[in-house]
Amino acid sequence: MSLFRDNVERMAGYTPGEQPQDKKYVKLNTNECPYPASPKVFEAIKAAANPDLRLYPDPLAARFRAKLAEVYGFSPGEIIAGQGGDDILNLIVRGCAGEGDVAASLYPSYTLYDTLVELQEAELVRVDKVEELAGTGAKVNFVCNPNAPTGVWTEMGVLDALAPKLGGLLVVDEAYADFAEDTCLPLVRKHANVIVVRTMSKSFSLAGMRLGYGIAQAAVIEQLFKVKESYNLDRISLAAAEAALDDLEHAASNVRRVIATRERLKGELEAMGLFFYPSRSNFVFFRIDNAPAVKQELMARGVLVRHFNTPDLNDFIRVTVGSDDEIDRFLVELKSIV
Amino acid sequence: MSLFRDNVERMAGYTPGEQPQDKKYVKLNTNECPYPASPKVFEAIKAAANPDLRLYPDPLAARFRAKLAEVYGFSPGEIIAGQGGDDILNLIVRGCAGEGDVAASLYPSYTLYDTLVELQEAELVRVDKVEELAGTGAKVNFVCNPNAPTGVWTEMGVLDALAPKLGGLLVVDEAYADFAEDTCLPLVRKHANVIVVRTMSKSFSLAGMRLGYGIAQAAVIEQLFKVKESYNLDRISLAAAEAALDDLEHAASNVRRVIATRERLKGELEAMGLFFYPSRSNFVFFRIDNAPAVKQELMARGVLVRHFNTPDLNDFIRVTVGSDDEIDRFLVELKSIV
Repeated sequence: MSLFRDNVERMAGYTPGEQPQDKKYVKLNTNECPYPASPKVFEAIKAAANPDLRLYPDPLAARFRAKLAEVYGFSPGEIIAGQGGDDILNLIVRGCAGEGDVAASLYPSYTLYDTLVELQEAELVRVDKVEELAGTGAKVNFVCNPNAPTGVWTEMGVLDALAPKLGGLLVVDEAYADFAEDTCLPLVRKHANVIVVRTMSKSFSLAGMRLGYGIAQAAVIEQLFKVKESYNLDRISLAAAEAALDDLEHAASNVRRVIATRERLKGELEAMGLFFYPSRSNFVFFRIDNAPAVKQELMARGVLVRHFNTPDLNDFIRVTVGSDDEIDRFLVELKSIV
Repeated sequence: MSLFRDNVERMAGYTPGEQPQDKKYVKLNTNECPYPASPKVFEAIKAAANPDLRLYPDPLAARFRAKLAEVYGFSPGEIIAGQGGDDILNLIVRGCAGEGDVAASLYPSYTLYDTLVELQEAELVRVDKVEELAGTGAKVNFVCNPNAPTGVWTEMGVLDALAPKLGGLLVVDEAYADFAEDTCLPLVRKHANVIVVRTMSKSFSLAGMRLGYGIAQAAVIEQLFKVKESYNLDRISLAAAEAALDDLEHAASNVRRVIATRERLKGELEAMGLFFYPSRSNFVFFRIDNAPAVKQELMARGVLVRHFNTPDLNDFIRVTVGSDDEIDRFLVELKSIV
């Protein structure tokens, strides 16, 4: 007899994404920001590296949530903070979808949704268009906006019309929304079943710190608090998060640079005659012949990009918008390969 | 219709433990270490506060696990690292206990077990003696060793005899084992269904960093890896953890000081004629008339201790072993109250 649940035993073994611990690669595979976080973040971390680390952190993340409330124009009771956007997504799925329940997502989209739903012994229904989410009876509906890996933005009006048609929660995953210079946060005020999830991994250049948050009406946040681990953010993470919010202009400036590079990259791909989705994110998903081989060859030449090994996506490569130098290097290698 | 699962709706609202963010209290309520972590930890954190925080951390925690393997004499494949011992406990319950399954624990014990089991819609059976775990048919069996809140140690021989009688996993929660100067880690080699869970919150003085690990045979660890969040430890946490393991003598020295103070505290409580459990942990659980009122009066006088508001435990107070000065202060106030 196995010690583990059948759904866990059935799951594929864990394969981490490529996170090389050396620096020999131009790393354009996991949508990190090419520019560093605010110097204020580093200062805050150094200041927090003191004997108080013997004490538990604030389980309510009160200062962090108060700052988020100020930045986004909500109250702290409408905000939950977590260990990356992934932590918030996890709390949502655990809170809302049990064994045999249905969850629904656009396809393709962020693959973590599949894993989280599988862990709950729930079923993930995939739809091609956002509007089709209305017919699934799902307890949790994921709309990654802009979507990954396409980068396509769903207009707020579409989600505004969708929300009342859903019996369950509408999760608007805005991990990349800063690069769209847009947000669906106003929907939170109108709909009791909308939660917007955000991360500091991309636009705040803090993937290494694991910081995220969810914004919804207080009744939703209250339930999610029951599911979260009491001390899900450590003292250093909280200090870093608060400092990052004290220097919004730093993040905004990085975002503007990334957007400029993205538009240049799109122009180059277009000039090469390649199809790509109209990305409003910090990556571009383009079609190319022999995509798996191209990805391998790029890696051999020191450039990491992402290829999804599923039939529908097999002809595409996702490239993160790095710095101008990194994208130049990527383009040189790509042109030389094709 | 509610957006959330019934078991979540039914759960009591989240009430965090008292973690005052000011410093006016002698804080003897959450079993933190009174002495700071190694200076090497602070140095490592400061060094890691750099632009690389824009990059994701190592999802395998390879360096941390390699160091743990060396310290405890296991292989990295027999170790999983997480965000505090709580994270590991969470992975175990999610991995092994589904809706309607049974989990079992000593009573009283660590109250997080109840919450984790409830989140899975599983049932927690409580037993008075460790041996009684054999009859419950539980998928997960918790033995906190030394137990909380009593501090009582269960001898390895008892668990060695128990393990083969269980159909499910035996979780030996050694959060406080360093203060017992003992361990049940040898059981991992003998039994495929034993996992030992440890934390750096207590003996390593890093409650504020959220670091823990589980040690079991590779087949168990492999399944737990499927359940864990990919990036469950951030770059700074990993740097801190590795540095802490580079200075074991610092932690060992803190532990010896705490043990000496604990024995002195026991002597004083005994001299006062108070009953207490024979603690081998960094806290002492003693019986006292009007315990709730005594706890409140101690707080009014600036000393925080823990009282559990359940009928069986109502006559007891748990006091963390602080520094000698802190325990002197506690004793002065206690004697003046009774």
